[in-house]
Formats: sequence, structure tokens, C-alpha cells
Amino acid sequence: MTSNPRITFAKLPEGSNGLQGLPMPGEHLILDQTRTIDLDNVPLNGGFLTKTIFLSPEPALRERMRDSSIQSYTTSFIVGAPVIGFGLVVVLRSEKQDIKAGDYMYGQTPWEAYTVQPYIEGRIDFKPEDWPPATFDMDSLALQVVPNPGGAFPVTHYASALGTPGLSAFVGFEGLAQAKEGQAIFVSAGGSGVGSMVVQLAKQKGMKVIASAGSSAKCDYVRSLGADVVFNYKEDGYDVLKQHKPIHLYWDNVGGEALEAAIEHLEPFSRVVCCGSLSDYNKAPSERYGIKNTTLIFKKRLTLTGFLVPDLIPQYGGRFFTEIPALLAQGKIKSREVVFEGIDSAPRALLAVLNGGEDAGKVVVMVAKE
Amino acid sequence: MTSNPRITFAKLPEGSNGLQGLPMPGEHLILDQTRTIDLDNVPLNGGFLTKTIFLSPEPALRERMRDSSIQSYTTSFIVGAPVIGFGLVVVLRSEKQDIKAGDYMYGQTPWEAYTVQPYIEGRIDFKPEDWPPATFDMDSLALQVVPNPGGAFPVTHYASALGTPGLSAFVGFEGLAQAKEGQAIFVSAGGSGVGSMVVQLAKQKGMKVIASAGSSAKCDYVRSLGADVVFNYKEDGYDVLKQHKPIHLYWDNVGGEALEAAIEHLEPFSRVVCCGSLSDYNKAPSERYGIKNTTLIFKKRLTLTGFLVPDLIPQYGGRFFTEIPALLAQGKIKSREVVFEGIDSAPRALLAVLNGGEDAGKVVVMVAKE
Repeated sequence: MTSNPRITFAKLPEGSNGLQGLPMPGEHLILDQTRTIDLDNVPLNGGFLTKTIFLSPEPALRERMRDSSIQSYTTSFIVGAPVIGFGLVVVLRSEKQDIKAGDYMYGQTPWEAYTVQPYIEGRIDFKPEDWPPATFDMDSLALQVVPNPGGAFPVTHYASALGTPGLSAFVGFEGLAQAKEGQAIFVSAGGSGVGSMVVQLAKQKGMKVIASAGSSAKCDYVRSLGADVVFNYKEDGYDVLKQHKPIHLYWDNVGGEALEAAIEHLEPFSRVVCCGSLSDYNKAPSERYGIKNTTLIFKKRLTLTGFLVPDLIPQYGGRFFTEIPALLAQGKIKSREVVFEGIDSAPRALLAVLNGGEDAGKVVVMVAKE
Repeated sequence: MTSNPRITFAKLPEGSNGLQGLPMPGEHLILDQTRTIDLDNVPLNGGFLTKTIFLSPEPALRERMRDSSIQSYTTSFIVGAPVIGFGLVVVLRSEKQDIKAGDYMYGQTPWEAYTVQPYIEGRIDFKPEDWPPATFDMDSLALQVVPNPGGAFPVTHYASALGTPGLSAFVGFEGLAQAKEGQAIFVSAGGSGVGSMVVQLAKQKGMKVIASAGSSAKCDYVRSLGADVVFNYKEDGYDVLKQHKPIHLYWDNVGGEALEAAIEHLEPFSRVVCCGSLSDYNKAPSERYGIKNTTLIFKKRLTLTGFLVPDLIPQYGGRFFTEIPALLAQGKIKSREVVFEGIDSAPRALLAVLNGGEDAGKVVVMVAKE
């Protein structure tokens, strides 16, 4: 028998049915070391057994840590069950055709060392006529086999440029940004997994890139990716945007004050791509920042569009999985990960992500060597 | 010599360079009775002389009553000069080809009884390559000759269904709403000039129409136009929308609280057409309502689009001026005007519009019988 440590969602953060406050290690997210697994004999029931290589703590996990009575775009977590999120796993045994021992797979997986994964068919239950759904049953999103880069780039890139953050940036940018060479884009949270990719995609389109970040280390990182103007919003505030006009496009990872500032300083006929709202995730709805300049939406004829990744995968996902690995291997897209070691570090790693942290790069929790 | 009374913009409303507070009759807007005009001999300099039939006080005039240092989508008014807005005039004399005595014209005109209008060519200075402009020089928007309905419908309809409010509703609805039969639309300020037209256009598309208004008289009026659900937001608040889900489209005439409520209750993948923000026009930017749920834009994958009428006229204006007069004559589109008598009532009339008033119908200032 082998130990199978996991991280469970022990209780809801307090206030507003779980919408408010940070999920704290040891309180809301706890390490459960009581489980064991017999790797050689555990029944697979037609599925397959995986070993977790790394887990990818992402801001969107916070949304799932709410009371199930609150509707949202994802299903909520079950109190007492393991956290589930994106990660990279390697297959140890399989009773499933097309999946074999040694395969790398990326997708949704429980925060535990080893998992008996169910039939993939059983996890995909979207009907084409219902696409895209209003609410995703995240747990039914399948793992998919991905190539082993074989040293061409670190596997941790599957958590950043080649993972959900990179995919978010790619499909949103291709599908909604209408980027134009010579125009300027403002990217908030430019050092985040999504932001760092948008910065690079925009530079590749020949845009001027203005980005904000929350620490000098992050600002340096964003500059190293090619951004033309980088500012620390905690020191400079967002009014600094005024000095860098004209701005034609805003990629919103942050919401709140950043969104208000962008609306204030964008050119007429600009576009806002609403990808996330890092500033809101741990606040009760009533405590969120109130945007007062929405009247400018008609005065400036702005268009704001929100998206979720699965909406755009059918159109743009294919290109992502062919184009980005090549660009990474050629060094034309850069990606940096900050590695937390061991599954026990996962709650701290998520907290660092939700706090904005001090590090530059996508946070990854390394659970096992490959 | 004939008396030529006019309404001048005497001084800026106080606070925030004119953005705050209502323009009060006798203080910010004053009746100037000192002017006279010799109707038979006043030189036309190649232009034409018009007599004002009616003036159309509209919320958008408020935006022009600001300090010229504040940029916006329209040029600001000049303190001491007459107010300029949409109205219907009749030509008395002309030195301009294609414009002859007796012609009705609709467009921008000073708030005075008689006006020597300059060359039309001199007033249109938009270059096609600059279209649409970020800021409109409103005073250069031309009067255009319109048909005399000859009793088929009241000429005051040129202030409502056939005027700027109707045009706003038509071009915005055709261009941006993506209305679908069987779906539901929420229209705020459903009794306003724009709102009442949107209600009717949506009904003609086979939509379920939910509308808000600020008095029981207005609610009755909106019901008479065919709206399925009408509520008084001052009594019921906007949470009443929850009872009337699903809602697939929101036409925003109001901004602030109404916009927040719509975002809260719209279905995923809904669209918001941002046409105006009545709730903001007299408030300093810092005192406006802060919208706290913009995070739902991405979670629900909403699209918010703002427009100004001239942007869409090239595409949809032609159909408006052919289709709507026929529908009015056939009684398939209804329009109601509340008539203020005499140019001296114009400041009060505008105040009533900006206050939301108690009357149901588009406010019109009748300056002269035809």
C-alpha cells in the first residue's frame, strides 16, 4: 500500500455563503494523509490509474468554494471532498483503449497523489445542441492526452503558456480582441498566467503593450516579455494610464478599479475583453468596487465582452495546441513558473495566487517527479 | 420688426465644471426677449430663414451644459448663446436651391422663434474617412427637409417616434439588439421617447417585453404600447426582474442601478445595448451609482455595446425614414407627446424631462402653430 495524500475542501470561507474571504491552509483547505492506495491492484473498472505530476492552482478555483445554492458558471465544490483543478498526470495502468501507461494527460484532476480516473466518455456529458452551457460541470471536463515535450521545454509549461492560462489568453485574444497592428492594448495583471501570455500575443501582433502588475519583481518579468510600458498599480495607481494614451483595447483580468480606469482612458470605439476579475474573487458582492463611469460605454461607444474558455475552444482550441508548443520550443513565447514543492504546499500556493503574491510567474505545485 | 424670443444658456450648473445639478429655469436657462427680426428683409447670405414650429427637449442636452474643457461625445454649449437642439421648423424664405418656402425641416436648430440658417454645406464638415468621429460638433448637424404628413399623423410625432428618440431606438435596435422572436427584453425608462419606441419595435419582433417606468401614469402608457410586464421601479425596485426571468436582452436608457440589476438577472450570453444613462446626467462623476457586479460580464459571457445615433445612420437611417412614417400612418406604431406651450416653457420642459417628470409621452415645446 502506498500513501495517497490529498487536499480536501474542509469548509466554506466565512460570510456570504462562502463568497467572502480567503480559503486558509489548515482551515478551509486541509491535508488529508489518511488514505492509501494499492497501485498494482486497485480496481480500475474500465478506467485508468494516474499519478499526479503537478497541480495548477488558479484564481477560478475560488469561485467553486461557495455554497451550492449560489448559481454560477461552474458547479460548486463539495465540502469534505478533494479540491479538483487543472493538472498534469501520468498514466500508470489503464483498462481504457487509446490510453496507455506512460501517457501524459492534462485536465481536471483531484488534488491527490494518485487517482483512479473514470471512463472519459462518462465525464463528457455536453450535448452539442446545449453548447455552450450556462454552467459547466467542471468535474466532467475530461483529461486529454498531451505530448511529452521530451526536453524541448519544461513540463511545467503545461501549467502556464500551454495550460489553461495560456489557452484562455489564446482563445480570447484570437476570438474577441480584434487586435490591430500599431494600436495599443492595456493588460491588467500582466504578470499572471493569462496576462503574461496576452502581453506576448499582443506584441506578436505588433501592438504597443501597456501592462500593470502588483510588485516590482512582476513588473520586471512583464518587461522581460516585451511590454512597452509597465507600471506597479499599487504604487502608481491606474491614473498613470492617462500618460500613455491612446489606448484601443483593454484585456481585463482584474475588474473593479482597473476596469473603471480603462473605461475612463480608452479611445472611442474601443473594445474590452472581460476575462477575469482577480480583485473581486474573495469579496462579498456588496463589498466589491463600484464602477461609476459606465455611462462612458455609450458615450465612447465601447464594447465589453465576457468569455469563458470552453466557449471558444471549438473554434480556436485546435490552433492553440499546434501553434503554441512550437513557439515555446523555438523560444518565441516565454513562460515562467514558480514551483511549490509537494502536495502539502498546494493550499499555500493557492493562497499566494489569490493574494497576488510577490513572485513573477505561474504558480505550480509539483507533486511528483515525472 | 417681429419679436424673436430665445432661450439662452446663461451659466453652468454648479459643481464639477457643470456636470452636477439640474439646469434651472431663470438661472441657468433664461428667456431673452430683447431680440427682434425683420422677417421680410433680414439678409440670408445664401442661406434660409426658418420659423420654429416645435423644439424637442432631450436628456442629451444636459451633457452639452458643461465646461468646454471636459471632453465628451458632443461639443459643449457656449455660455450666453442660445440652447441648440432638435426641432421642427418651417422655411419662410430661402436663397438656397432645393429648399423653398413652406418646406418642413427637422434637425438641430437654436431655441428661438426665427433663425437665419446658414448654408447646409457649411454645416456638414465630416469627412467620410473620419467617420464616425469621436466627438460630434452637434451644431454642424444639418436640418433636413422632411415630408409634411398632411394630417396622416400629428407633426409632433417628429419629436418622438419620427424624431431623434425614434431614430435612436430604430438604428440601435436594428444594428445592435440581435432581437430574437420568443426571447425577452428588459427596457428601462420604457415610457421615454426612446424607450416607448423600443417597446414597440421589440413587440413587432415577437419578443416578450418587460419595462420599467417611474410613475403609474407612465406604467399605464407603456402597457398601452403592448409591453407584457411593466413595473414602477420607484415602488418595486429592480429586484422584481427576478420574477420575470428568463431575460435575454437589456436596452439601457438609465445606467446605474438599472444596469446593475439587468446584469444581475440576465441569462448567460445576453446582450446589453447601452443607449443612455438618465440616472447619471445631473450627477458629478464621483456621485454616480457604483456598479459592483461587473464580474458577471465574464461569468455570464455578456456583451455590452454602446452607440450614438449618427454612428448607425449610414446603415439604418434610410429604412427609418421610409418605414416608420408608414407604420405611424397605419397606427401600427403609437406615439404620444406631452405639449408645453410657448418658447418660454422650454426651460421648464427640459427640467421635466431631466427630472423624469410625471407625464407619459415625449415632451415637446410648441413654439408656433404651423
